[in-house]
Amino acid sequence: MNYKINQRNKVLRAKERGIYDKKTVYEILDAGKIAHVGIIMDQQPFVIPMSYARVDDTIILHGALNSRICTSLIEGMPACITVTHLDGLVLARSTFSHSMNYRSVVAFGTARQIEDRDRKTKALESLVEFLAPGRTSDCRPPNKKELNATSVVEFKIEQASAKVRSGGPKDKQADLDLDVWAGTVPISQHYGDWQAAEDLKQGINFPNYKEGIK
Amino acid sequence: MNYKINQRNKVLRAKERGIYDKKTVYEILDAGKIAHVGIIMDQQPFVIPMSYARVDDTIILHGALNSRICTSLIEGMPACITVTHLDGLVLARSTFSHSMNYRSVVAFGTARQIEDRDRKTKALESLVEFLAPGRTSDCRPPNKKELNATSVVEFKIEQASAKVRSGGPKDKQADLDLDVWAGTVPISQHYGDWQAAEDLKQGINFPNYKEGIK
Repeated sequence: MNYKINQRNKVLRAKERGIYDKKTVYEILDAGKIAHVGIIMDQQPFVIPMSYARVDDTIILHGALNSRICTSLIEGMPACITVTHLDGLVLARSTFSHSMNYRSVVAFGTARQIEDRDRKTKALESLVEFLAPGRTSDCRPPNKKELNATSVVEFKIEQASAKVRSGGPKDKQADLDLDVWAGTVPISQHYGDWQAAEDLKQGINFPNYKEGIK
Repeated sequence: MNYKINQRNKVLRAKERGIYDKKTVYEILDAGKIAHVGIIMDQQPFVIPMSYARVDDTIILHGALNSRICTSLIEGMPACITVTHLDGLVLARSTFSHSMNYRSVVAFGTARQIEDRDRKTKALESLVEFLAPGRTSDCRPPNKKELNATSVVEFKIEQASAKVRSGGPKDKQADLDLDVWAGTVPISQHYGDWQAAEDLKQGINFPNYKEGIK
């Protein structure tokens, strides 16, 4: 199933890299932890990094009650949410042909506040599950005071496009004979050894969902 | 030296994490490869991932001639450039206290086109050097045709703020006794084994600046 394509989400440059199907968009979103959320306030764009969760065709965001970004989102202002993964550097023989390998999604839509208490609790849990799958099985759920202190919004993805580059450098034929090393430098995210909180109670082992967090 | 603080760049939430000195802002920018560039077109925010270079108090960006983003930037529209590093997941005992460790910079300003040929060449080289320090010592510099096909802009950082979170979870006292593992999961970028281009000439070794690319 594809997103409707128009001027807003059409990939114009390197357009062979543009992808509009939901499956690809979801995969790229689901592989991320931080979204860059763009809103307008007083004719000034703001791009704020936020944690997020994708649930079906929505992106869940949260923030402190009355925070600048949440208030703007709740007011139904048009927003843009972008998630990018850097997969490598592409070293070409010419300055001009240098590039990066990446996967990115640019999503357009508007958000609305989640006010219903049960839906709000579920949305907050989806944020934690997106961060660390399995985690809500043992951490304490939000209480009334915490729920009241938090704004939770759901951003409906009206349109989106994905853009993906992979593979080696694409040098011009005339440059292939240059005595310059060319190729790619793969980049990936590495999850290190878990570090227990200084005040962790004695005798608590790593959770059984540890392997799924990556 | 600090950036001037006003409503635009003041960190309002978790404000103890807000940092306004240029040294910290530069360090965070210099540790990145991809910037999320926010602009407004027809009252719609766009957030586009772009490669960049920081040179003194400017951020260099480039794109295809007449690309949407470059045209908007050249017209002097207000822009916002954000760079974020994810350093870890923070697993707290409660849903509410989950967090991430990160370093981010949100920069505000306007851009202008670099038209002078020598400055343009130098700016393109700075992009490659930012991607891969040392690289311009052996790759072919841009020729006239390539320069003409590229828009290069310099974004003057008028104001910026950095925001940094590090350390373990900050659970409420009453939650410390819960039987839940708590702590951090460190995340870092890993540079893998370099992969030579399929069409790389025989007998070309890795360059001597390889160790500096990370």
